[in-house]
Amino acid sequence: MVRFVTFEGGDGTGKTTQIRALASYLTSKGKACLVTREPGGTDLGAMLRRVLLEAGGAPIAPSSELFLYLADRAQHVSEVIRPAVAAGTIVLCDRYTDSTLAYQGYGRGLDLALLRQFNSVADDGTRPDLTLLLDCPVDVGLGRTAHRQKQSQSDAPKEDRFEREKLEFHDKVRSGFLKLARQEPERIRVVDAARPAEEVSLAIREIVDKAMN
Amino acid sequence: MVRFVTFEGGDGTGKTTQIRALASYLTSKGKACLVTREPGGTDLGAMLRRVLLEAGGAPIAPSSELFLYLADRAQHVSEVIRPAVAAGTIVLCDRYTDSTLAYQGYGRGLDLALLRQFNSVADDGTRPDLTLLLDCPVDVGLGRTAHRQKQSQSDAPKEDRFEREKLEFHDKVRSGFLKLARQEPERIRVVDAARPAEEVSLAIREIVDKAMN
Repeated sequence: MVRFVTFEGGDGTGKTTQIRALASYLTSKGKACLVTREPGGTDLGAMLRRVLLEAGGAPIAPSSELFLYLADRAQHVSEVIRPAVAAGTIVLCDRYTDSTLAYQGYGRGLDLALLRQFNSVADDGTRPDLTLLLDCPVDVGLGRTAHRQKQSQSDAPKEDRFEREKLEFHDKVRSGFLKLARQEPERIRVVDAARPAEEVSLAIREIVDKAMN
Repeated sequence: MVRFVTFEGGDGTGKTTQIRALASYLTSKGKACLVTREPGGTDLGAMLRRVLLEAGGAPIAPSSELFLYLADRAQHVSEVIRPAVAAGTIVLCDRYTDSTLAYQGYGRGLDLALLRQFNSVADDGTRPDLTLLLDCPVDVGLGRTAHRQKQSQSDAPKEDRFEREKLEFHDKVRSGFLKLARQEPERIRVVDAARPAEEVSLAIREIVDKAMN
């Protein structure tokens, strides 16, 4: 039974658009859906999200950053994800444990075995049934986020820390995500996200329909 | 060489008073001293301290709480403790890794081996040379914090989450601290904190003088 679906992938791969499209599709089929995200799916998480993505002042130490993401996740699982799944709702979550492995592990070089242990404390056994990995070349993804920021200047979105980081880092993250997908091909399905959004949506619906039936 | 000294113990054992007294003493002997605390020794930490001790809204999940303390520590080590120790300053820190073991481990029942591993990521090899464990019966300590709160009502101190918790929890924490001291008697020195503050200060000076010479 597919109840808990996560969306993973680099910045600008279209996760937010696609998660909304899938939620509309499932809702139209009469399935109760909850859309949530990390960091930020709880009050605590919203505060941590601001700290993580708009940090001013002293730079956040890599291990401190890791623990903030884990604190966000632990609260998110306990307060939102687990109760919703238990109530029979389909939970669609923008980023989850694989992001920790891809960003902090493959990206920043923290030990993967240790990160998996940390994840298992944070998720407390709540694992995704299906993960959609939205994959596209790093320059395509970052080009989209640059465009998005230019378009919405009136909303004063801050150029966030991650988006300031180098292409090299994002390349490591992308190949990390793809390695994870090769390790768990049943759970993690790679979706080519360089295509037009409509085509990506159709591909995702097909995967989800098959997984649910 | 004793450079990094931590103060541990339950609420109301006099850590704040004693750490200040020791700092005055060391400064009067011409030694540069930095007094800091967890949670809260950095800008990030100050914010996390507010979250942890004055939480409103949904209760913080135990594992989320743990990760917030670790995030605070990782930042504190990287931004404050390690640079100060490297510069030859004596660092006096109010709570550190032993508090994680006593509160989250012995108090809340999280796995001690795992907590030690988490601590080692957060402290990144920065370990105390000396730890002063201020020990007194739980009812004495909690009686002091109740008195302190009554005295300073005009400052509107919130009764914090920890201080609302049951005596039973604090008993487990106290005996946890004492177990840690038995495991590392060279580093962790137990100081009877039920005595008048002046006597406690003298006992601490004696331990520190011996350790430094």
